[in-house]
Amino acid sequence: MFIMKDKALENEIRDKVAVSFGRQTFMATLGAQIEEINWGAVRISFGLDPSLLQQHGYLHAGVSTAIVDSACGYAALTTAPLESDVLTVEFKTSFLRPASGTKFEARGMVLKPGRKLVSCEGEVWEIEPGQKLIAKMSATMMLQTG
Amino acid sequence: MFIMKDKALENEIRDKVAVSFGRQTFMATLGAQIEEINWGAVRISFGLDPSLLQQHGYLHAGVSTAIVDSACGYAALTTAPLESDVLTVEFKTSFLRPASGTKFEARGMVLKPGRKLVSCEGEVWEIEPGQKLIAKMSATMMLQTG
Amino acid sequence: MFIMKDKALENEIRDKVAVSFGRQTFMATLGAQIEEINWGAVRISFGLDPSLLQQHGYLHAGVSTAIVDSACGYAALTTAPLESDVLTVEFKTSFLRPASGTKFEARGMVLKPGRKLVSCEGEVWEIEPGQKLIAKMSATMMLQTG
Amino acid sequence: MFIMKDKALENEIRDKVAVSFGRQTFMATLGAQIEEINWGAVRISFGLDPSLLQQHGYLHAGVSTAIVDSACGYAALTTAPLESDVLTVEFKTSFLRPASGTKFEARGMVLKPGRKLVSCEGEVWEIEPGQKLIAKMSATMMLQTG
Repeated sequence: MFIMKDKALENEIRDKVAVSFGRQTFMATLGAQIEEINWGAVRISFGLDPSLLQQHGYLHAGVSTAIVDSACGYAALTTAPLESDVLTVEFKTSFLRPASGTKFEARGMVLKPGRKLVSCEGEVWEIEPGQKLIAKMSATMMLQTG
Repeated sequence: MFIMKDKALENEIRDKVAVSFGRQTFMATLGAQIEEINWGAVRISFGLDPSLLQQHGYLHAGVSTAIVDSACGYAALTTAPLESDVLTVEFKTSFLRPASGTKFEARGMVLKPGRKLVSCEGEVWEIEPGQKLIAKMSATMMLQTG
Repeated sequence: MFIMKDKALENEIRDKVAVSFGRQTFMATLGAQIEEINWGAVRISFGLDPSLLQQHGYLHAGVSTAIVDSACGYAALTTAPLESDVLTVEFKTSFLRPASGTKFEARGMVLKPGRKLVSCEGEVWEIEPGQKLIAKMSATMMLQTG
Repeated sequence: MFIMKDKALENEIRDKVAVSFGRQTFMATLGAQIEEINWGAVRISFGLDPSLLQQHGYLHAGVSTAIVDSACGYAALTTAPLESDVLTVEFKTSFLRPASGTKFEARGMVLKPGRKLVSCEGEVWEIEPGQKLIAKMSATMMLQTG
């Protein structure tokens, strides 16, 4: 839930994130769509597709990782001044269960905001047919201005 | 360099890796190609493509990560019995420079083989136009049999 | 909260963890004490001491890391058969704020249990004078039997 | 090997690292000693001690981690302006073999220098009785000025 007093600024930030996401052609290649943008929290949905598989027919771990990285990066960006951009410094992903479902959601959350560095956590959930946490990310994002 | 005494086994392992890689439709989507398979070391090449970009027109970090994860996983698999399969437990990727080039290579290497767990390291190099290390991975792979 | 039906087994597991912790001379060197042992969750308290400082007089990050590693490892061990032992495969720690307080608590939690590998998360909190999350760990533990 | 043209500056940097290390009371508690300080590379030695053990009588993984973190941090600091200080943002440590030896060495190396962030890698070697890599660290350091 956005907690900004300035509703216009809130909308500008949401727009900025949506525009930046739209420029990431790789997100379109992966069929990823932003579901929700809030202060410090972004959700992105995606689905199983014949072009995104690993050797056993499950969703490739790289797909989940790329999308939850975007969710974390944009979550960080919502906490930054409007003119800032964001860059991934590093992330770690732990794979908890095989991605055997058909629909998924990546959730990026800010753990600790900062002027330069933002510490984030991300989750990848199978949302259809089951509700299962399949991966967990810990990421460091860097904000850049100008 | 393969150091096996059994040349036939060496070829079987190479074939197994190539077949498994070929089943990963996501690697084809990313335009990734295996360059070399040796004991504990696998190299995969890939290039810039309009479908693989982040918001500034560079290669998306998720592309590099997915491919170097495959390089690490298959490097681990070359050290395992022929009937084994491999699974990523976790990886961490540090992004050192923007992926601003046009051709890249992911190199997966086994740091410590094991019966169950294999510790690997991966590098992503820009190979055209420059020669630059752009990302470094540290990964834990799990071997599975039967 | 322990959710085992078998109260005797629950006590045996708690005893096993306490005995193992007592054998870690390094935990005594760090002044660490177990506060609570539950299924998949262990809390350990510790405090500032003149022997545990970094160059600016704050608690050394290595102290927090060692103790939250123990908290995660023992959290994993509570989910394992009584005859198992536990080993750290890898961990990542993100340092969110300087450890400028005087009393701290490390909390280890199981994110995903498993027969061989257990995925854990740990938190280090300053509990005096403030209540602040100062570090976050993501860890892979391996269970060993016999 | 130091590659600075300014020999006086080189000595000032070495002195600065040695003084900062000397202020870390935790390094004395661990019996750690700096062996060598070069541009982007620091080596620290340490040994088995009855106060530093885990439950099986081996060196506690937290000891190795704390010392290789210091080696990485000081390696980063040698690449920074004289007035800078260094802070650990995050690290990941993979444990490759049990620390069953009696003497060890932590080696911190700069993978990618930077004005704000420095990417480092660290190794922990058993040096007596054997020569074995027992742990590998990947770390992000932040430089701070003023």
